[in-house]
Amino acid sequence: MTASAAPASQTPEELFAAVCDHARRVAVLASVEALLGWDEQTFLPPEAGSYRGEQAAAVAGIVHRLRTDPAHGDRIAALAAGPLAHSGPAVVVGTIRLLERDFTKQARLPARLVEELAKTSIDAQQAWRAAREASSWAAFAPWLERMFALKREQAACQLPDRDPYDALMDDYEPGASWPAIAAQFERLRGQIVPLVRACVDAPQRPDDGLLRRACPVADQRRFVRTVAERIGFDFQRGRLDTAAHPFCSTMGPDDCRITTRWDERFFPTALYGVLHEAGHGMYEQGLPRDWHGLPPGEAASLGIHESQSRLWENLVGRSPAFWEWCFPVARDAFPGALAGTTADEVQRALMTVTPSFIRVEADEVTYNLHVMLRFDLERAVMQGTLAVADLRDAWNERFETDFGIRPPTDAEGVLQDIHWAAGLVGYFPTYTLGNLFAAQMMHAAETRLPGLDREIAAGNFRGLLDWLRQHVHAHGRLLDSERLVEQATGSPVSEQWLVASLQHRYGAAHGL
Amino acid sequence: MTASAAPASQTPEELFAAVCDHARRVAVLASVEALLGWDEQTFLPPEAGSYRGEQAAAVAGIVHRLRTDPAHGDRIAALAAGPLAHSGPAVVVGTIRLLERDFTKQARLPARLVEELAKTSIDAQQAWRAAREASSWAAFAPWLERMFALKREQAACQLPDRDPYDALMDDYEPGASWPAIAAQFERLRGQIVPLVRACVDAPQRPDDGLLRRACPVADQRRFVRTVAERIGFDFQRGRLDTAAHPFCSTMGPDDCRITTRWDERFFPTALYGVLHEAGHGMYEQGLPRDWHGLPPGEAASLGIHESQSRLWENLVGRSPAFWEWCFPVARDAFPGALAGTTADEVQRALMTVTPSFIRVEADEVTYNLHVMLRFDLERAVMQGTLAVADLRDAWNERFETDFGIRPPTDAEGVLQDIHWAAGLVGYFPTYTLGNLFAAQMMHAAETRLPGLDREIAAGNFRGLLDWLRQHVHAHGRLLDSERLVEQATGSPVSEQWLVASLQHRYGAAHGL
Repeated sequence: MTASAAPASQTPEELFAAVCDHARRVAVLASVEALLGWDEQTFLPPEAGSYRGEQAAAVAGIVHRLRTDPAHGDRIAALAAGPLAHSGPAVVVGTIRLLERDFTKQARLPARLVEELAKTSIDAQQAWRAAREASSWAAFAPWLERMFALKREQAACQLPDRDPYDALMDDYEPGASWPAIAAQFERLRGQIVPLVRACVDAPQRPDDGLLRRACPVADQRRFVRTVAERIGFDFQRGRLDTAAHPFCSTMGPDDCRITTRWDERFFPTALYGVLHEAGHGMYEQGLPRDWHGLPPGEAASLGIHESQSRLWENLVGRSPAFWEWCFPVARDAFPGALAGTTADEVQRALMTVTPSFIRVEADEVTYNLHVMLRFDLERAVMQGTLAVADLRDAWNERFETDFGIRPPTDAEGVLQDIHWAAGLVGYFPTYTLGNLFAAQMMHAAETRLPGLDREIAAGNFRGLLDWLRQHVHAHGRLLDSERLVEQATGSPVSEQWLVASLQHRYGAAHGL
Repeated sequence: MTASAAPASQTPEELFAAVCDHARRVAVLASVEALLGWDEQTFLPPEAGSYRGEQAAAVAGIVHRLRTDPAHGDRIAALAAGPLAHSGPAVVVGTIRLLERDFTKQARLPARLVEELAKTSIDAQQAWRAAREASSWAAFAPWLERMFALKREQAACQLPDRDPYDALMDDYEPGASWPAIAAQFERLRGQIVPLVRACVDAPQRPDDGLLRRACPVADQRRFVRTVAERIGFDFQRGRLDTAAHPFCSTMGPDDCRITTRWDERFFPTALYGVLHEAGHGMYEQGLPRDWHGLPPGEAASLGIHESQSRLWENLVGRSPAFWEWCFPVARDAFPGALAGTTADEVQRALMTVTPSFIRVEADEVTYNLHVMLRFDLERAVMQGTLAVADLRDAWNERFETDFGIRPPTDAEGVLQDIHWAAGLVGYFPTYTLGNLFAAQMMHAAETRLPGLDREIAAGNFRGLLDWLRQHVHAHGRLLDSERLVEQATGSPVSEQWLVASLQHRYGAAHGL
């Protein structure tokens, strides 16, 4: 340890303050990087893309240097070896543990590997775009080969004692372990495949034709903003804009920005984009503000993040109670399009289940089949039981087994997602974990908050949001997702709530 | 010089490349700072202001450290002492000279003074806001005292051999010298004061009532975008947004963003905001792209920048020829508001001259009187012939002399501008220099481009923009403003063109 890093005269409290100060400085610059990204996807002039790349790379470089500053690491090590790490207040103990964990993982990555991952990710994404365009698996497979090799290397550097797939998942779902998830997913799949068949064959299929009448985008804008405000997204501390691929990005403790997209002939595109992203946004806005930039002020995991978006999008936003409140609002916004329909018809139309090839266009039920397929295949590749060369065929076969249809082109199959090209391996399972957590949380909230359904039907979402604030948001990253869900709901994580929720809700909508 | 800064083995060309590379890296991060500022004034959520301050300060600190990096200074010094600085290509010789000049000025500022200026500027602007609100000169005067003392110190550090006022002007109008400007301004004032009286007393005063009919903001948006596109602002490399105080900001070689504001009952607010800012924007878009971030790719001075905005706003945008093209476009945009009017009536209404207290609301003619008053007073304070304590009375007396009216409150007098609180001393004259340069350039363009009036009347602005591109924009910062104007127009800088232009145009509009 250098003298300047932790002078002998510093008390543990001073050392903790210095470490937090550094972490907050990193967060300030990381939030500038977030602004560059947000602006790129919302307002960047068409020709400004390449300079934006230079700007983002420059700031990312500064953030990375600060984050891996050896003096910072020395201070963290001194803290972790000191009394505060064991006998300090719980939030301090947790913060030190997580900062040390993060720093160690970062510091174990050689600069050479960081650069190679960054460069390969950019090149592979370009190759992916071209390959998808041409629907050419052969053009993309070599890039995937290279990327998986780098990810194996990353896993071995960062968490050498863990299974390589678990080591990668750890970036998104800290502490997650694949055997437990695989078992849950297998049970879930065993229930969803027959549910999809039953919905498809149902005598009483919902008809979403009534959602396909023209609604001017200006009216949609007002409508979805009203809904976002009403469920609790704080526009004093956030914004709503337009983006081709909706996202939520946070660039400061009071600056959380969500986006959606518009389809004049299908207003649910904008509405469910906003409900989903506002779910993410309300989580960000509910994290402990005073700890912004430090683990107690950060999201627990991507799975927990996704649970918040999915809860509002699907469990609230597609419920009969929600549409009891929302239908008159929607009819005021789109008087022409919704003339002659009822809340009931609209809500049922939103529950249509149809097997289809593209994950991001999938309904709530089939969505999980898309995710579980990717989880199984990417894990097999990481673990060496499936060759990249065989990935496309494995994809198509599994798809046919689960969906009863086979992708007619690779663009509609193995080439549809950008994730692997971007190096996001171990990321997909967090989508279904989010659904699973959301169903379990919603069940707990319904149990603990009697009359919740009536509140939602009255457009009063405060009780539900407060419950989530208290039981999920307030804990930041101090609990891992399993413990957070168990503590919030009183039960260990299980797929049973999602299965029950889907069977109940989609069964009702399909007259099963 | 350190070995790492300029290894003996580096050729002058390699050294030049290294210096340019560093300057471009500075520019990349400075452009990130620009994005933070633009976003703050356009889209920042209401509560995100204080964190934005931290973000901006963090990036500004990095930019300042990079810009004053001693190794960069050593390389520049080595270049300046080497053969390229004298016998290289003209653009290289000029670049080295300006980089050395910039670095020396920056390096001469002690860190203590930089911090004190930054902090006093923030505090003084807050004090100014409160003082203006309360119209209390006494509350603001001590801050001005402090700020002028710091500016005197800055001048003495940076350019100790120059007159202190010239030393400050040098930041905005490099090389400018006050006696010449004062003489021009005095002659200009001698002509404008009687012109204003004549306009006010004219038997045939234009009536701007017809401009005060309601035009929906959505229609104004489409209209001003059409105009900005038509005159040549490139939306592939720029944007137009809304801001309370319109501005133009560049955040990359292909990313120039202008803003305007909207008054439903006075569409010229938005239109002339856009013409002004698009003038700035087209200058930025016309600077040599390959030299972005280096002197040949930078604006020559604030006066030259203002000449481009004023030329399009006033000399083009208020001309009968422009309204011949623009009137049908405006009438299509605002059919209700412009029903029963003619191009001629609208154009004349836009030429109304009325003495008023607030500079930013002044008409084209009286505007210069506002500026010259500030130039004389701030110079007297800097040169020690006027005490800050006497500034308010001096303001009011001069105002009465020039305008024939006396500010009823200090908020409408000496407290109206933020500039001095922000430390912008020596900045005001660039506004009238811009008008003066613009009139001289427009005269030259009209002489060299026969039929320009007819082109403008046909909505064809390409010839004028190309002339400006070639004679003004293409030179970047390699010529100082006097030489640039003289080279572009064939005459030394003179106020005579502005006098003639105002007398001719406003005389015609007032039937003089």
